[in-house]
Amino acid sequence: MISGRTAVLAILGDPIAHARAPGLVNAALAERGCDAVLVPMHVASDGLAAAVRGLRMVRNLKGAVVTMPHKTAVVTLLDEVTPEGRQVGACNVVRREPDGRLVGTIYDGDGFIAGLARAGHGVRGRRVFLAGAGGAAAAIAFALGKEGAAVLTIHNRTAARAEGLAARVRAVWPRGEVRTGGPDAREHDVVVNATSLGMKAGDAVPLDVGSLAPGTLAAEVVISDGPTPFLAAAAERGCAIHHGRPMLVEQIGLMLDFMGA
Amino acid sequence: MISGRTAVLAILGDPIAHARAPGLVNAALAERGCDAVLVPMHVASDGLAAAVRGLRMVRNLKGAVVTMPHKTAVVTLLDEVTPEGRQVGACNVVRREPDGRLVGTIYDGDGFIAGLARAGHGVRGRRVFLAGAGGAAAAIAFALGKEGAAVLTIHNRTAARAEGLAARVRAVWPRGEVRTGGPDAREHDVVVNATSLGMKAGDAVPLDVGSLAPGTLAAEVVISDGPTPFLAAAAERGCAIHHGRPMLVEQIGLMLDFMGA
Repeated sequence: MISGRTAVLAILGDPIAHARAPGLVNAALAERGCDAVLVPMHVASDGLAAAVRGLRMVRNLKGAVVTMPHKTAVVTLLDEVTPEGRQVGACNVVRREPDGRLVGTIYDGDGFIAGLARAGHGVRGRRVFLAGAGGAAAAIAFALGKEGAAVLTIHNRTAARAEGLAARVRAVWPRGEVRTGGPDAREHDVVVNATSLGMKAGDAVPLDVGSLAPGTLAAEVVISDGPTPFLAAAAERGCAIHHGRPMLVEQIGLMLDFMGA
Repeated sequence: MISGRTAVLAILGDPIAHARAPGLVNAALAERGCDAVLVPMHVASDGLAAAVRGLRMVRNLKGAVVTMPHKTAVVTLLDEVTPEGRQVGACNVVRREPDGRLVGTIYDGDGFIAGLARAGHGVRGRRVFLAGAGGAAAAIAFALGKEGAAVLTIHNRTAARAEGLAARVRAVWPRGEVRTGGPDAREHDVVVNATSLGMKAGDAVPLDVGSLAPGTLAAEVVISDGPTPFLAAAAERGCAIHHGRPMLVEQIGLMLDFMGA
């Protein structure tokens, strides 16, 4: 029951209609007995700076979840970014402090690893193929390094962004093998879609599905009701599949703690 | 149940914890079967412009209810104000159009008159004493003129604001007697508190209660759980009393229609 005393949380994204966070976060808030509500805010890239400046002024706002395509852009709009957020160069949650200061961090990497672990999948010593080089991909790349993956191959439509991410991961993870590559994912144990492809009907698959060997684990960051095109194609090739939802589910508690909700 | 498809409405005010609109509006939205939610936004005066600029960017925002102390200040932040809003010089509801344009109007006057009418009180031919000269007071003053009150006496702590409002009402209501006065409310049939006094514990009463004759109708715009200090004092003097809540209740349907919710 929303009253004048209810605290507000937002999720900023474009598109936003598909977002699962409102249902999951509001259920978690109710479970915590916290008088707060999360509402979706559909904000386009050209409106992000003004929207964030506006949210600073909302004194009962605890913070915001930040989703695609704003995870990278939001960093420059904040007063403080945690070491994790600075390393990744992206934030997916922002806390509003009582004086209006905004502090951001990112839990996508931790959430992804925790989701895999809860499903019984480890990444230590595994060869991982990662499609994407945006905020979620970077978070996952650094987390894979921290978790001790043996090989990380980054593939991105814009190759320079993959090179840039690979160089940054290599700098903090000198013992792993970090490289960039084309859409061919053969000779990897885990193949991850960390692009937004699959959010819209008719989206292409972010890599060469024909290169997936049976038994490979195909993991997704896109959350959808059924399998995404990537997961559907991977399942058809005899791969094990891992949906996008656990990555979000695993980090909701972390996000609420961070926002003080 | 809030999802990514849920439209958002806000109420902007300072303070906001006391606001009754969240409960009433959300109940009305549920009754309409409208997938939208109203959340409180505690915004101080120095943050109003930035907050409103930010809300322009929120594409699933249908609009905002505007409450004290922002009803007058918000006018300059909008793209369009209805004739009613321009006349009063204040808005208490803003609609966000799909292109981000903001259109405002005010329903406080209509809501106040409708609330009195539903309680069996008419104002035609009556002598009305009005304490206050802010947004709500102005809305009520113009509505009293339109409804054919015989006398309107405006009393305000800052007398110049009362004079200004009286001159504006006189200009559109030449047949009524519009004047300003001190805190003495004798020889009036209806006495209205349209200031914010009574919102905070220990607030003063906005007029000389000793001047209230038994049988006078004392009407309030401040919404509180029990009688405000003004209504309590008036009841003790043998006045009939009319609470602040009906003014809000009567205009919620109008506000939702205006915002397209």
